[in-house]
Amino acid sequence: MSDGGGLDPQDWAAFRALAHRALDETLDAVHDIRDGVPWKPIPAEVRAAIGDDPLPRAPSDPADVYAAFAAHVAPYAVDNRHPRFFGWVHGAGTPAGIIAGMLAAGMNANVGGRDHAAVEIERRVIRWWCDVFGFPATASGILTTGTSMANLIGLLVARRAAAGAGVRAGGISAEAGLTGYTSTEAHGSVGRAFDVAGLGSAALRAIPVDANLRIDVDALRAAIAADRSAGKQPFIIIATAGSASTGAVDDLVALADCARAERLWFHVDGAFGALAQLAPDLRRLVSGIERADSIAFDLHKWLHVPYDAGAVLVRDGALHAATFADHAPYLARTQRGTAAGEPWFTDFGPELSRGFRALSVWFTMKTYGLDRFGELIAQQCAMARALGERIAATPQLELLAPVTLNIVCFRYAAGLEDAASDVLNGKIVIDLQERGIAVPSTTRINGKLAIRLNVMNHRTTAADLDATLDAVLAAGAGLLDRSSA
Amino acid sequence: MSDGGGLDPQDWAAFRALAHRALDETLDAVHDIRDGVPWKPIPAEVRAAIGDDPLPRAPSDPADVYAAFAAHVAPYAVDNRHPRFFGWVHGAGTPAGIIAGMLAAGMNANVGGRDHAAVEIERRVIRWWCDVFGFPATASGILTTGTSMANLIGLLVARRAAAGAGVRAGGISAEAGLTGYTSTEAHGSVGRAFDVAGLGSAALRAIPVDANLRIDVDALRAAIAADRSAGKQPFIIIATAGSASTGAVDDLVALADCARAERLWFHVDGAFGALAQLAPDLRRLVSGIERADSIAFDLHKWLHVPYDAGAVLVRDGALHAATFADHAPYLARTQRGTAAGEPWFTDFGPELSRGFRALSVWFTMKTYGLDRFGELIAQQCAMARALGERIAATPQLELLAPVTLNIVCFRYAAGLEDAASDVLNGKIVIDLQERGIAVPSTTRINGKLAIRLNVMNHRTTAADLDATLDAVLAAGAGLLDRSSA
Repeated sequence: MSDGGGLDPQDWAAFRALAHRALDETLDAVHDIRDGVPWKPIPAEVRAAIGDDPLPRAPSDPADVYAAFAAHVAPYAVDNRHPRFFGWVHGAGTPAGIIAGMLAAGMNANVGGRDHAAVEIERRVIRWWCDVFGFPATASGILTTGTSMANLIGLLVARRAAAGAGVRAGGISAEAGLTGYTSTEAHGSVGRAFDVAGLGSAALRAIPVDANLRIDVDALRAAIAADRSAGKQPFIIIATAGSASTGAVDDLVALADCARAERLWFHVDGAFGALAQLAPDLRRLVSGIERADSIAFDLHKWLHVPYDAGAVLVRDGALHAATFADHAPYLARTQRGTAAGEPWFTDFGPELSRGFRALSVWFTMKTYGLDRFGELIAQQCAMARALGERIAATPQLELLAPVTLNIVCFRYAAGLEDAASDVLNGKIVIDLQERGIAVPSTTRINGKLAIRLNVMNHRTTAADLDATLDAVLAAGAGLLDRSSA
Repeated sequence: MSDGGGLDPQDWAAFRALAHRALDETLDAVHDIRDGVPWKPIPAEVRAAIGDDPLPRAPSDPADVYAAFAAHVAPYAVDNRHPRFFGWVHGAGTPAGIIAGMLAAGMNANVGGRDHAAVEIERRVIRWWCDVFGFPATASGILTTGTSMANLIGLLVARRAAAGAGVRAGGISAEAGLTGYTSTEAHGSVGRAFDVAGLGSAALRAIPVDANLRIDVDALRAAIAADRSAGKQPFIIIATAGSASTGAVDDLVALADCARAERLWFHVDGAFGALAQLAPDLRRLVSGIERADSIAFDLHKWLHVPYDAGAVLVRDGALHAATFADHAPYLARTQRGTAAGEPWFTDFGPELSRGFRALSVWFTMKTYGLDRFGELIAQQCAMARALGERIAATPQLELLAPVTLNIVCFRYAAGLEDAASDVLNGKIVIDLQERGIAVPSTTRINGKLAIRLNVMNHRTTAADLDATLDAVLAAGAGLLDRSSA
């Protein structure tokens, strides 16, 4: 498509027509989302068409590339846009996010630093979230690809606070015995952050949980005391606000008190649960989050910003910058000109080049307004609670965890031994997925395989949930019949 | 804009019209890019309009949000799309990338794992790059936000190789004395990766460079020997293929030989320089890259994929997975259904949720073809060399570094002392930026402030470079006149 003078089209009219067609079909796919299925298997010939495609040395007409996308990629999604997609904890995207993603690809801004409006937009978005969580004006933050990176950044700032400025050049000393504390229900990214940061995942103590799957604060205090007695150096408590398995939320007030008493960093992994702050009736669940030293959360989950987008906020902005800032000569800052505008976002995270995901966050927040997200979050949690009640009242079903937020974990029990139940419930989930009825995922609660429904999609209705539960009951009965036949 | 049933528009026709207008104006901005300037300062009232915008509790018409974008964001870019943007090492974006970014925002795929076409696309893209660099079928890789993260991932795999499986749980100990080697010209992200990984940036030895700013291999061998004598554990050599300051490329064959002789991991930071591999006449510069244990490179630089996109390839795919894979119960994989398709990309990097940046890479590679990128890279390097020759032949100017690839570093010398020259050249750069003529950036070469032109934009012509150099000469003379007046 190039004209020898670069990569811009020779025939702009044809290119424009293609872009508009692609936009229309993108919007059609969202408009007609209920006509499709939330997932279907990739046919072998489609997998081969993608997987055997040789290295593209020569150019192709962009219309042909788009046709390949439309034929082989678009139809074979894990379609978290669909109202009966309940798997994992995925956001659904929004039409406004499509415009924003297009605008961001068009501007092609590098938001690592320098003096331009894209940086101002990210600063504003960070400030808005500081306002949401009651963080002070001296707080800082940065958008990330998600909570995994946000947890890592929070941990690195805490590591810098505990080990001092010398840790950046001198590294971790095993003798220092830095230890952290979280619950057995914490997300895997927390242990992974300890691994990446050189502390080792074993330095993260997995504290038992109570019947509601919240961290046992007495056990936490005992673990800290035991580590201190053993010469270790406790330095961080990581709370879970919305566990990945069940949506459990730790007692953040008790943890903030404990962190203050023990003089430990208090980090909240609020991947999706932190956004309960937006719903007046749910806010009490995350009370205490405003006392955190750092908060990590996703924007591609309950804010439905297109993947990927998350954030970390740090109460002590100066310490945050002291953890990452360094000034290479080719990144020198100036008082005027393009290289003005300190601090740069490269001072607040490990990345030097950074995309303009802030535009999607800004566009989403302004278009829908945070009150609307609060309403939707409240509605979804109410639907999840109602579903939990229906499950508890259904003899063939067993609710496996309390419904704290929006996640419902249960199994088709039917009096089976656990091993047989695990097999049966795994089959039920795959049956629903393969038939295109719904996409639940699975987890394990106290060792038992659970069917897990994440009620997060803004298109999901109570009827979708009822239909899914009906399908679980039918599939369970059918599979039992067949196995006993 | 919501209808009470979610976040989809009530008035789809109006929303579609807005989206099409936004698309047209996005394409107009690229089509008319020469009519604008590569940068202009943000007026105070625009900065305030963004920065004082209160937390959006209530919704807004998306047309109003778009109007705010069009008024306050789009015009105030660091506009790396512009043919006279020469700052830092930024890609220019492409029209095909705009379509791909829009499609990706529309699909809203999470490419962390599971069985869907988006994962197959990323696998294919990684395999294509393995083909480009001659990596074996057992190699692995993952797309990242850029080379900063790619370098970190490469380092973590090397750390795992050197310290053994126990490092993930047990952490790193400064006492183990793991040491790495790179040149004084290495990118800041390499030292930052040592910092993040708990090794400490001081464990990365900065080896001197020769007159061509390439690592001094004899000095490297001596440093390794000295560290071994001191009881340290050398484990990695990190080569620079295209230094950030000047585009210098280390002797990769010599480094590969040294790494083999010393039994060290051989990582290549090829942020932009690795793509010289695409240009037949330049390929010799990166000869030896095919022997690397891991290669990090950007796709938002010389491939012009919209920000942000980079990649890391790892020769030993099993070791790569052993560095990151862990299996949380809520991420259990299955043989069939939505959760099939091992390995997942979460097994190859620190992120669990991941956007579909692979689509932009795939769309870009297929549309333009890699041969075209090779031609453009060769043209840009030829233009940079010609510019270097003109500078060397101009009495008022001083070329400060050899032009290896596409970066030209020079100063308006005019017989000044270094300190005065630094001030003058800094002023020249800001003058060109503020007047909208061109955006050079600066760096320091042997302590001297250099005007730095990165010739990477596929829209840049030799006339753009000549006009920029003319402007430097005029600005330099004018500033000297004024200061002596």
